[in-house]
Amino acid sequence: MAPTAGKTITCKAAVAWEAGKPLSLEDVEVAPPKAGEVRVKVEYTGLCHTDTYTLSGSDPEGAFPSILGHEGAGYVESVGEGVTHVKEGDSVILLYTAECKECKFCKSGKTNLCQRVRATQGQGVMPDGTKRFTCKGKELNHFMGTSCFSQYTVVSQFSLVAVNQEAKQDRTCLLGCGVTTGYGAATHTANVEEGSTVAVFGIGCVGLAVIDGAVANKAGRIIAIDVNPEKKAWAEKFGATDFVQADKVDDIVKHLVEMTDGGLDYTFDCTGNVKVMRSALEACHKGWGVSTVIGVAAAGQEIATRPFQLVTGRKWQGSAFGGVKGRTELPGLVEKYLKGQFKVDEYITHSQDLENINKGLEEMKKGGCIRCVIKM
Amino acid sequence: MAPTAGKTITCKAAVAWEAGKPLSLEDVEVAPPKAGEVRVKVEYTGLCHTDTYTLSGSDPEGAFPSILGHEGAGYVESVGEGVTHVKEGDSVILLYTAECKECKFCKSGKTNLCQRVRATQGQGVMPDGTKRFTCKGKELNHFMGTSCFSQYTVVSQFSLVAVNQEAKQDRTCLLGCGVTTGYGAATHTANVEEGSTVAVFGIGCVGLAVIDGAVANKAGRIIAIDVNPEKKAWAEKFGATDFVQADKVDDIVKHLVEMTDGGLDYTFDCTGNVKVMRSALEACHKGWGVSTVIGVAAAGQEIATRPFQLVTGRKWQGSAFGGVKGRTELPGLVEKYLKGQFKVDEYITHSQDLENINKGLEEMKKGGCIRCVIKM
Repeated sequence: MAPTAGKTITCKAAVAWEAGKPLSLEDVEVAPPKAGEVRVKVEYTGLCHTDTYTLSGSDPEGAFPSILGHEGAGYVESVGEGVTHVKEGDSVILLYTAECKECKFCKSGKTNLCQRVRATQGQGVMPDGTKRFTCKGKELNHFMGTSCFSQYTVVSQFSLVAVNQEAKQDRTCLLGCGVTTGYGAATHTANVEEGSTVAVFGIGCVGLAVIDGAVANKAGRIIAIDVNPEKKAWAEKFGATDFVQADKVDDIVKHLVEMTDGGLDYTFDCTGNVKVMRSALEACHKGWGVSTVIGVAAAGQEIATRPFQLVTGRKWQGSAFGGVKGRTELPGLVEKYLKGQFKVDEYITHSQDLENINKGLEEMKKGGCIRCVIKM
Repeated sequence: MAPTAGKTITCKAAVAWEAGKPLSLEDVEVAPPKAGEVRVKVEYTGLCHTDTYTLSGSDPEGAFPSILGHEGAGYVESVGEGVTHVKEGDSVILLYTAECKECKFCKSGKTNLCQRVRATQGQGVMPDGTKRFTCKGKELNHFMGTSCFSQYTVVSQFSLVAVNQEAKQDRTCLLGCGVTTGYGAATHTANVEEGSTVAVFGIGCVGLAVIDGAVANKAGRIIAIDVNPEKKAWAEKFGATDFVQADKVDDIVKHLVEMTDGGLDYTFDCTGNVKVMRSALEACHKGWGVSTVIGVAAAGQEIATRPFQLVTGRKWQGSAFGGVKGRTELPGLVEKYLKGQFKVDEYITHSQDLENINKGLEEMKKGGCIRCVIKM
């Protein structure tokens, strides 16, 4: 058993004291895991736009002060009572989309949206309603059930998965959100058909992962769309066959429909922009085109279209965490990565130490940054 | 060969001279069918809300003067050059959703939306760009490729199907639109799963046919929703297990989610009201609920929702003619009807002679009318 087991650990963490302010590097106390919980020594954390979205104050679920971060990998430091499926020393990926394998959702066979810890996760607390982080005498909120911007974190036993120790954690952390989200949207949620036409709106980490998933499913044509012309080279590196600079065409829907003799078989929104979501739907082929929303829209924003678009055979759906069940499927994705069948390394353009996390968050806003990984 | 073959036939028809005015009973001249066309002696025509919608002037595709009607059955009077799959005397159902079996859409295996005659059909003309109806020296527009409010009509060879002669045409006409549209939306488009929960918004002919389709697919619970309390008995007669009078509950979405422990597996909009379409989507179960839009909205109306509804696993789709391929599948549906496996008679509440068609259109606006069949 780890010498720290059962004791409070004091470590470094980037604390979000309030919305709209930079993160603050602090010493935080991390309480030991209670029954059904696991304490993890976080080694690496990817930075994702959802972290900056919540930090900005726009996320209705965002509670402060808190420890953000949700794309983390590390080692199990200790487990609480009754935890049997992970043990001290396991190499783990943290899961903001939990998987209990027991709830109505997990058992449905139709969704990866386990609801076991959903309510408390949304409230920024552990499943028993309490918190494990304290800083300067104040309790800090948990975030997305993971809070990876701390060197140690406590999560529900359903919010992590052990994977092959051989995979480096500065890579596997990306499977905790962006890469899995995009790849799974193409291979699971839409299940892109061999030979089909695909359009991907927004070429960041998620968009590139959609392209990689479409390539894996043997799509015939993959059109990447972005306003930043530098994304052309990125898209092509991942397997896109075409690139359209959205702001250089008058009507993106008309342009895509013409390029594809009637529209796309599959489209994906990876922008979070509700107008783009509409274009993605309307660029689908009449009769069978399927549009998948992945991006997270700002609070209160709505998507709209004429119902005729649906009545004439287009389908509108969404994808969270790529439709992937974390505990069941991430070990296999890690194996695919180790065999070179699945891109992960290619997304990483930047890295920072924890003390420079704010610099990493700034870099992320630039077009040249696909993924920045923080060494905790 | 019929003595009338190759000659112009003068017969009675209800002409729509202009939008917003009653139909006018006239003597019209119906030219013989050209190559690839078929002239049909229409025996019975069902009245559908789409006819009144177009007559009102709200349909952007509506062109006047014209002969409306699209839910017809009759006999082949004569065929044009090259027509081989129907012959004089065949008992036929007219198809506003054509099926050529040769176009990209027909061959896709993914849709019933044949596009072979779509463009000209939308323009109110035959596939060669000309018209077959003349009245008082004026050419009349065709409507939905069928124009069944005439005792004789000319249609593309792809816009009709021969069915078992034993089935009475005052019944089979309903398979040309309403009954097939609702039944197919449940059995084809949504393909309702055994034991699942279903909600149907709008209990007219189409809504009742959705219920019948959900019963055929062994749904576990079928909730019918309408503002008219008289529809409760109708819904139950067709197999609904519950009825909700929409205007008697504060929040229909919340009410349905509570009734079903989280929402419906399948919902169907049969109202054409875009607000109802939104409720139908949002009443779906998180993770897997599928909402199917069937109703036709007024021109320019849009549906909207928060994208979060899709990202959390709901799907929004539409259905036209129930996803049914008319030439391939209607003969089988007629056989099912003859074996008593499929309701048709039960929808008919009213009937009129052609000369009283305006009375029929008036009756249709009342809640007590499910389907009115016109004897031509």
